[in-house]
Amino acid sequence: MKKRIVLALGGNALQKNGETTAEAQKKVAITVGEIVAELADKYDIIIAHGNGPQVGNILIHEESAATKQAPAMPLETAVAMSQGQIGYWLTQAINNALIKQNKRRKVVTVVSQIVVDKNDPAFNNPTKPIGQFYTKEQAQKLAKQNHWTVKEDAGRGWRRVVASPLPVDIIEKNTIRELVDNGVVVIAAGGGGIPVYRTKITKRIKGIDAVIDKDYAAEKLAELVKADIFVSVTAVPNVYLNYGSPDQKPVHQITTKEVKDLIKYGYFKPGSMLPKVEAAIKFARHGGAGIITDISHLKSALDGKAGTIITS
Amino acid sequence: MKKRIVLALGGNALQKNGETTAEAQKKVAITVGEIVAELADKYDIIIAHGNGPQVGNILIHEESAATKQAPAMPLETAVAMSQGQIGYWLTQAINNALIKQNKRRKVVTVVSQIVVDKNDPAFNNPTKPIGQFYTKEQAQKLAKQNHWTVKEDAGRGWRRVVASPLPVDIIEKNTIRELVDNGVVVIAAGGGGIPVYRTKITKRIKGIDAVIDKDYAAEKLAELVKADIFVSVTAVPNVYLNYGSPDQKPVHQITTKEVKDLIKYGYFKPGSMLPKVEAAIKFARHGGAGIITDISHLKSALDGKAGTIITS
Repeated sequence: MKKRIVLALGGNALQKNGETTAEAQKKVAITVGEIVAELADKYDIIIAHGNGPQVGNILIHEESAATKQAPAMPLETAVAMSQGQIGYWLTQAINNALIKQNKRRKVVTVVSQIVVDKNDPAFNNPTKPIGQFYTKEQAQKLAKQNHWTVKEDAGRGWRRVVASPLPVDIIEKNTIRELVDNGVVVIAAGGGGIPVYRTKITKRIKGIDAVIDKDYAAEKLAELVKADIFVSVTAVPNVYLNYGSPDQKPVHQITTKEVKDLIKYGYFKPGSMLPKVEAAIKFARHGGAGIITDISHLKSALDGKAGTIITS
Repeated sequence: MKKRIVLALGGNALQKNGETTAEAQKKVAITVGEIVAELADKYDIIIAHGNGPQVGNILIHEESAATKQAPAMPLETAVAMSQGQIGYWLTQAINNALIKQNKRRKVVTVVSQIVVDKNDPAFNNPTKPIGQFYTKEQAQKLAKQNHWTVKEDAGRGWRRVVASPLPVDIIEKNTIRELVDNGVVVIAAGGGGIPVYRTKITKRIKGIDAVIDKDYAAEKLAELVKADIFVSVTAVPNVYLNYGSPDQKPVHQITTKEVKDLIKYGYFKPGSMLPKVEAAIKFARHGGAGIITDISHLKSALDGKAGTIITS
């Protein structure tokens, strides 16, 4: 039996030097594909990717060019669009790397709906800015029209903000697990998943505009597919204490208890390393290993020789 | 063993009264979901949907709101985006209908790449108009910049035209087949599939801007998953001879030989009924039944009591 790993790729992992054309992002995907294909000998692989910059651009296009005939798609549908987009690029890149490396494994992107709790307190305090910038007047008008919450964004203008609730379940979990059981490399839970909730009485699922943190979603996926290892693939080779300061210190092997103490002492910032560290802790508490590293150290981190490795 | 059916849903099948908001299209998807869930007792189901109006709107947004920071996605990636979008709506609608009908089947959307032949003669004569309208000057400038072919569209302005090559293979076919074998309702080959070709020497797959006919793609999928029945779900309950004229005559049961004679006599129009009839013939020649009907006659057509049923 191969070990089962879930890789949470940052949405920025597909963009280099700020280049956002499809061609440029596909080129970056090729590097990811090569590494995933190399890992395919030893591991069963599930990839959950972010979509920050991609869904941002989709929303900007949808909203700024909306007409009566071609209305803007809402956020939840835009997330689905970004899953098709990024999933396609990754699938193709991994397929090609497998061909190049003479390996026979299948790759598939599963459009994924992730259930959130409609009573999640996050819905009372939307914090995640999305879409384009507006003037105060435009923003307040749109807020009224569309029941949006809008906020001033660090002096750069006004933006819509949405809630970032916790993932509770993944609608496609059993299918994803069966695909992995059959040796398929699966791309799922893209962009944190399409946010949906269950209605109270009829238990139907319904989309809801929100942004689910990609690391939390990937960790939930890792639990549900019974992965052995969860890796948050980010921009640094490992977690640092005092990052960017003269006494910056890398963190390699660490226990959940130790890292929770570090959190208490304020070592990791929300919106930066904190969600990754928290996701890794959550996974480690389920008995697996939670790793934080970058794409170029991924292989050696899986061998225990690089990255930050959190265990229980 | 359940019979295996492939349903080719027209892209218009998700739009009623020209309403193109996500909410309106999701509402139409609910009807489709109810019928699919009803069929799930008796059949294994694969759904291939069109994307004409949806990818049209995506391209209009992408192209008319493109900036350096947020460049327009190319057609092949836009098709992938439409697969995420429509696949999500359909998955959710079918999921909810299954919950309502108290049935336990899984549903999944597979992002699908369809291989075309780069030497397909269609590439020498692009005919499929896509995206927004331009003035002659704009169109010719864009054509030069992007290596597009542009044409005047029936007095309404200038548009880009792309090739409509035949589908040759589906990259995800084995995964799709295994999912169906396991009882999963699969949505695949959306919008005729993301068009890709294989490079000559390295055999890599690469995206290419083209539009694959949805009925041909769905028929190819039906062959590859060894379906028993292929249904082109369209706007009319069955094929008619002399459609719209006083002596309009429905066609019910018919053999491939008979219907080929009718084609020879010019009975079916290209761009309208002809691709559906041709796809049904192609499938029937592989030993199955090719059906053309609308969504409300789908159940009785499968029982042999409605629709146009083509057999060998």
